[in-house]
Amino acid sequence: MSDRATAPVPPRLQEWEQRTEVPLFVAGLVFLVGYAFRVLAPPDTGAVRDLALALVCATWLAFVVDYGVRFRLSGLGRRFVRAHWLDTVVLLLPLLRPLRLVQVYTAVQKRREQPRLSLYARVMSYASLTAVLLGVSAALAVYHQEHDAPGASIRTFGDSVWWACATLTTVGYGDAVPVTFGGRVVAVGLMACGLALLGAVTGSFSSWLVQVFRREDE
Amino acid sequence: MSDRATAPVPPRLQEWEQRTEVPLFVAGLVFLVGYAFRVLAPPDTGAVRDLALALVCATWLAFVVDYGVRFRLSGLGRRFVRAHWLDTVVLLLPLLRPLRLVQVYTAVQKRREQPRLSLYARVMSYASLTAVLLGVSAALAVYHQEHDAPGASIRTFGDSVWWACATLTTVGYGDAVPVTFGGRVVAVGLMACGLALLGAVTGSFSSWLVQVFRREDE
Amino acid sequence: MSDRATAPVPPRLQEWEQRTEVPLFVAGLVFLVGYAFRVLAPPDTGAVRDLALALVCATWLAFVVDYGVRFRLSGLGRRFVRAHWLDTVVLLLPLLRPLRLVQVYTAVQKRREQPRLSLYARVMSYASLTAVLLGVSAALAVYHQEHDAPGASIRTFGDSVWWACATLTTVGYGDAVPVTFGGRVVAVGLMACGLALLGAVTGSFSSWLVQVFRREDE
Amino acid sequence: MSDRATAPVPPRLQEWEQRTEVPLFVAGLVFLVGYAFRVLAPPDTGAVRDLALALVCATWLAFVVDYGVRFRLSGLGRRFVRAHWLDTVVLLLPLLRPLRLVQVYTAVQKRREQPRLSLYARVMSYASLTAVLLGVSAALAVYHQEHDAPGASIRTFGDSVWWACATLTTVGYGDAVPVTFGGRVVAVGLMACGLALLGAVTGSFSSWLVQVFRREDE
Repeated sequence: MSDRATAPVPPRLQEWEQRTEVPLFVAGLVFLVGYAFRVLAPPDTGAVRDLALALVCATWLAFVVDYGVRFRLSGLGRRFVRAHWLDTVVLLLPLLRPLRLVQVYTAVQKRREQPRLSLYARVMSYASLTAVLLGVSAALAVYHQEHDAPGASIRTFGDSVWWACATLTTVGYGDAVPVTFGGRVVAVGLMACGLALLGAVTGSFSSWLVQVFRREDE
Repeated sequence: MSDRATAPVPPRLQEWEQRTEVPLFVAGLVFLVGYAFRVLAPPDTGAVRDLALALVCATWLAFVVDYGVRFRLSGLGRRFVRAHWLDTVVLLLPLLRPLRLVQVYTAVQKRREQPRLSLYARVMSYASLTAVLLGVSAALAVYHQEHDAPGASIRTFGDSVWWACATLTTVGYGDAVPVTFGGRVVAVGLMACGLALLGAVTGSFSSWLVQVFRREDE
Repeated sequence: MSDRATAPVPPRLQEWEQRTEVPLFVAGLVFLVGYAFRVLAPPDTGAVRDLALALVCATWLAFVVDYGVRFRLSGLGRRFVRAHWLDTVVLLLPLLRPLRLVQVYTAVQKRREQPRLSLYARVMSYASLTAVLLGVSAALAVYHQEHDAPGASIRTFGDSVWWACATLTTVGYGDAVPVTFGGRVVAVGLMACGLALLGAVTGSFSSWLVQVFRREDE
Repeated sequence: MSDRATAPVPPRLQEWEQRTEVPLFVAGLVFLVGYAFRVLAPPDTGAVRDLALALVCATWLAFVVDYGVRFRLSGLGRRFVRAHWLDTVVLLLPLLRPLRLVQVYTAVQKRREQPRLSLYARVMSYASLTAVLLGVSAALAVYHQEHDAPGASIRTFGDSVWWACATLTTVGYGDAVPVTFGGRVVAVGLMACGLALLGAVTGSFSSWLVQVFRREDE
């Protein structure tokens, strides 16, 4: 959706994208689960943590391979990097990888010919899903950075999730706040992305409600 | 409003819904009052608290019966659960039950043929009412969870209402914040629902103001 | 603007309203200045404080007389209270009296035939002015309630203005927060009114910016 | 964009504006860099700080000269101050000077005939850029005011940037808050300007997302 192909998509690339859809969806899920295990497993469970790390690296490799193949097949050369900037960013910032799940969810929704959700409902579900995935990723990353930092107020994963919710909704109580440099960088990213998404949810909800009431009038 | 019946409503269901409107409105009110008494009554007033608990359970039973009858009369079978998902959620999450009051308020507004409020005014009043009811329910629930938790900053019901206001408006001072797991779950729910509603109020107010000024120009 | 006269305005009422416009504008200003002196004057300046109190009461009286005369002249009887609910509220809640300034400002703007501000600019200036006046009134009232309360974090008028700004913009740092019942009631009012107004400013600014860019395209 | 010339622009003024565009862009950048060095350089690097101060003053002079020349060439007399109020404000409030960068960025964007960004994307990029520049300026100014104030919670430039992000997004944790008068004045300015800009970003993003989904439907 964010990728505007300036040239028509070559048939082989199209075929590749359809074939890799399910594996990449699974890879995105595996990445999130693996990262969660890596971060949340107790320190004495060495084997589990190593397995989780391996899974995380494997999914990274899968995304690299997919990116390389699509780069080749597209025949766009360097312009591919710009035309598919979202994929490029996702490749470099692994924490954004779960966004892949949203992309696939949207693609699947489009194909199903069931009684479709209204325009606003789709924007809301799309934005909410992205917000939740970003929130979970950010909570994991912030917990990873903060839980053993001196003077930290985010000590458990529960604190981290609580912090992520308060940040995404811009409530910002300030009872749990990142204090390390890494944690704050993730937090600023969450604020920037999350706010835009929440704005989309709020705006669509408002439009939808007005639509519902208007329809009742007629 | 949130329930889109895919099939036409059977006449007996329609009759049932009209007949139960007032009783369910009363049941919603009684639930809120009963829950408030249960939570706020001093611990030594055993009789009052027991009565309040009985009232809460009775209204729950009333909602279960209503749900069962409508499930039967609709003739939709399992699809009823999905088509009337709001009712299902309200059944399982008693704290959302006061939303019933809003549903009835809207239905009554629709029937009265008085000079009607403008579209935006109705969206605003609907969303504000829902926000207030959710806020009161959340304040009660958070007070219930927090007031005797160790290290809590919400100690009185006044603190809880103050916290709910600061949360619903996304101000989030952080001087009164839930610290228990239960309290935080309720808080996240309030943030999610409340923000959407406040977004609707804000958006409608903005549209209404522009409309008023535009009308003056003409 | 908020008063929708359901009947045509009688000529004598219209004349009264035109004649009292300037005096009521002055009265609104005097009320704000008097209240500010009353609250901010050091305790040993008894004469100044008494004079300020007299001014506040005098303006209140002026508003009562104006309300009474308009009640009579309108010939609406009890319906006047509902049709002019904003005036009724302003009469009972003196802190909202500065809103009169906004009403007059809007009326004057309407009469001047100068190159008029665009629709969005007018909504923005109207909402900003109201927000500023409400913020100043709330800062005065909260300072009045809080500055000598035990455990208060709002100790100077500067703190109070700082708190009002953080509240109106929903930033809500929480470093200065009302702790008394009275202060919190004013704060909730400021949140509710202020947010709606800020929503109007934000929404109009967004619409205006889109309009500017669209015009450049053409 | 904010300057509405009521009269047609004289040709000599137009020529001047085109010639000074690049120098003023550079001057704006130099001001920001010079101010940053002035504020952030360690106290023992006297030479660097003096150079930075000289740069800041030199760019101020450049803006004064530019303002004077345009005042003359416009032939508007005193009306110039009102018609070009944004330039006047920028002249008096040096911290807003980086906004010049945005003005030039917009002008350059307009001239390039490349496949243009969509309307919403341009509003978003314009508002984001302004927000980032205002945020950086405010972070510098607040750090300048606060870092050696007694009882300050903003002690490093990192804290100041963190505070600016939390303020611009209205999250407002309150862990880092200005306590001096100067710092709070800058903060209120950042809240007021920043919120409007963020509102524009949010509103445009919401509109853009709805547009994208609508296009997919067709």
